[in-house]
Amino acid sequence: MNYSYEQLHSFTLGMLSKIGCSEKDAVTAADVLLSADLRGVDSHGVARLSGYVRLWEKGRINPTPNVRVVHETPSTAVVDGDGGLGLVVAPYAMKIAIEKAKIAGTGWVSVKNSNHYGIAGYHAMQALDHDMIGISMTNASPLVAPTFSQERLLGTNPIAVAIPAKDQPPFVADMATTTAANGKLEILQRKGMDTPIGWVQDKDGNPTTSTSGVKDGGALLPLGGDREHGSHKGYALGSIVDIFSAVLSGANYGPWVPPFVAFLEPDPNPVGEGIGHFFGAMRVDAFRPADEFKAHMDNWITRFRAATPTPGNEKVLIPGDPERELEAIRMKVGIPLLDPVVKDLTELGERFGVKF
Amino acid sequence: MNYSYEQLHSFTLGMLSKIGCSEKDAVTAADVLLSADLRGVDSHGVARLSGYVRLWEKGRINPTPNVRVVHETPSTAVVDGDGGLGLVVAPYAMKIAIEKAKIAGTGWVSVKNSNHYGIAGYHAMQALDHDMIGISMTNASPLVAPTFSQERLLGTNPIAVAIPAKDQPPFVADMATTTAANGKLEILQRKGMDTPIGWVQDKDGNPTTSTSGVKDGGALLPLGGDREHGSHKGYALGSIVDIFSAVLSGANYGPWVPPFVAFLEPDPNPVGEGIGHFFGAMRVDAFRPADEFKAHMDNWITRFRAATPTPGNEKVLIPGDPERELEAIRMKVGIPLLDPVVKDLTELGERFGVKF
Repeated sequence: MNYSYEQLHSFTLGMLSKIGCSEKDAVTAADVLLSADLRGVDSHGVARLSGYVRLWEKGRINPTPNVRVVHETPSTAVVDGDGGLGLVVAPYAMKIAIEKAKIAGTGWVSVKNSNHYGIAGYHAMQALDHDMIGISMTNASPLVAPTFSQERLLGTNPIAVAIPAKDQPPFVADMATTTAANGKLEILQRKGMDTPIGWVQDKDGNPTTSTSGVKDGGALLPLGGDREHGSHKGYALGSIVDIFSAVLSGANYGPWVPPFVAFLEPDPNPVGEGIGHFFGAMRVDAFRPADEFKAHMDNWITRFRAATPTPGNEKVLIPGDPERELEAIRMKVGIPLLDPVVKDLTELGERFGVKF
Repeated sequence: MNYSYEQLHSFTLGMLSKIGCSEKDAVTAADVLLSADLRGVDSHGVARLSGYVRLWEKGRINPTPNVRVVHETPSTAVVDGDGGLGLVVAPYAMKIAIEKAKIAGTGWVSVKNSNHYGIAGYHAMQALDHDMIGISMTNASPLVAPTFSQERLLGTNPIAVAIPAKDQPPFVADMATTTAANGKLEILQRKGMDTPIGWVQDKDGNPTTSTSGVKDGGALLPLGGDREHGSHKGYALGSIVDIFSAVLSGANYGPWVPPFVAFLEPDPNPVGEGIGHFFGAMRVDAFRPADEFKAHMDNWITRFRAATPTPGNEKVLIPGDPERELEAIRMKVGIPLLDPVVKDLTELGERFGVKF
C-alpha cells in the first residue's frame, strides 16, 4: 500500500517528538529520513524509524544533543555529535562545511559521536543550491570483509558526490563501497532468489550465492567482488571512508563501529566515540566562474546521455537519474511500504500514542 | 634483464635534457617516471618515455612551460600547465596544495593544459612527510565505456589516497577506476591468455574475454564489470575524477581528452585545454593532534593486518603493501625491462645520442 509523503513525514515528526527531540531537530531528521523513501533507498527510510527508537530506549541516542565544533581551521572542522541522531548531526556538520567553503573556498568536516545518518546523497545535495560540489561519507557497522579477510571489518561505507549543472539536473552519485548494498540482498531474500557470485562470502570466507550468507556469519564483499575483479579497490575505498570519517574525527573505526541494531551491544573497549561521518563542500567558483562550470557540466551530461547504448539497453544514465525520477513519481503517487514495515510502524505508533 | 634505478634515472634525465627540459624539470620528471618502475606499475615508467618524446616531436608537449596559478582562494587553486610534461606540472600543483593546507588546513588544486602525469600514487605520497593526507587523480584518453554505453567516454581515471601512520608504513591506495588497468590486459595479451569476464567489452558492447577487445574497438569496463556487480559505481567514480580534474579546471573531459599516443590526433574541436588532474592535501592536525591520529592509524593497520585470512590466502594486505615491498626489492636487484622496451629505449637513445 502507498502512503503519502506528508503522512509519513508527519508520523515521523510525531514519533521523534515523543522521544524528546526539539521540533526543529525532529523536522530536520524527518526530512532526511523521508528523502530515502522518496529516492527509493527504502532500507534507509521510515523502515528504520523503529530501529532509532529502540536505540534511544537503550540510552544509545541522545534526543537533546549539544552538537558542536570542537576543533577548526579556516577550511576544516571536527564536530562532536554528542550522541545525537545522525539525522540531526549530519545536516549540522554539512552546514559548517558549506559556511567554511563560502570563505575559504572549500570546507571539510569530520564528525565523531554520531550514529546512522540516513542516505549519504541527501547531505551531499545540500551543497547544490550554493553552487558548490557536496561530498558525504560515513562509516557503519562491520558487515564487509576486506579482500582475503574472513572477518567483517568494514561497514558498507557509502560515498556520495553531488555536482551542480545549469539546465540539466545535477550529477548525484550515492553508492555503498560494496558490490551490492545490504538492502538489495534483503530484496532477493524476500523473493527467495540467490545472489550473484561476488556479493557475499560465507562464514568460512568462500564465495556463496545464499542470501542468508551474511546472517549466517558471512560477509558482504567490497565493490569488485573478488581480487581478479578489483575487490582490493572496493576495500581501499571503504577503508578511506572509514579513516576520513572516524580516524580523523576520533570516532570508532573498523570492527569497533557500534552496531545500528539495539540487540547487539557496542564493543566494551571502544577506540573512539560513536560512529563517524565526513563531509566536504567545494565552491565551484573557487576554481572557475560558476556559469562556465555549469555550462560545461551540461555539456558533459548531454554527451554522456547521448552515447550509443549496448545491446538490450535503452540508454546511458547519469548518476542520480533513477533516484530523481523515482522521487517525482513517489511525490505524486505516494511511497509503497511493505506489510512488515506497516505492521512495525503501526505497533510503534500504538506504543507511543502517535496515530499511524 | 634488470637495470639499476640509477642507470634508468640517468638515461631518462639525459633524454629529457635533449628535448629541452631544464635540469630541474628533468630531475623532477625522472623521479616521477622511475617511481612507477620501482612500484611495479611498469606500464607508466620508462616504457612510456618514447611516448612522451613522440608527443614532443609532434609539438604536443612544451619542454619549457610557464606553469602557473591562474585562479585561487585560501584553500583552492587552478594551475595552467602550459602544455608541459604532466610529470613536471603535477608535482608543481601538488606543492601548491600542500602550501595551501599549511595555512588553510586543506589545499585543493585542479589542473588544466597538462598531459600524462605518471602514477597517481607518487603525487599523493608527497603529502606524507608533511603529516598530511594526499589525494591525486587524473583523467586520461577515453578507453572506458560507462555502464550501458557502447562508446568509450572515460579514461582509466585513477584515484590515489596516501595517509600517514606512526610506526607502520603509510596507507597508500592507488587504483584505476576500472576493473583492471590497461597494463594488466597487456600482460595477459603477451602470455596469450584470455581476460576474465568483467574486464572488457567488444566493439558491439558485448562482454568478451579477448585481450584484443579494446584494440578492436571495444572498451575497458568500469570497476564492477557489469550492472549486477556494481559497474555503475565504477562509472560514477571515473566520472567524478573526470569532472574534478577537467570540468573544474577547464581541461578537456570525457571523449575530448587528447590521446597519449602521438599517432592519434586530438579532437579538432576541444572543449578545454589539454588533460586535467586534481590534487588534495589535508593537514592531519587540522582535525586532531597528528600524534593521536597517527597512533590510531597504526591501530587501524595492525588490526586489519591481523584479520583471519580466507582459505588459500596467506594474509590481509593494507593498500600500498605490495608496491612498497616491490620497491625495496627493485632498489636492490634492479628493474626488469621487457625485450621490446629495451629495444625501444636503445633506439631512442641512439636517435638522440644518449647512451642507454
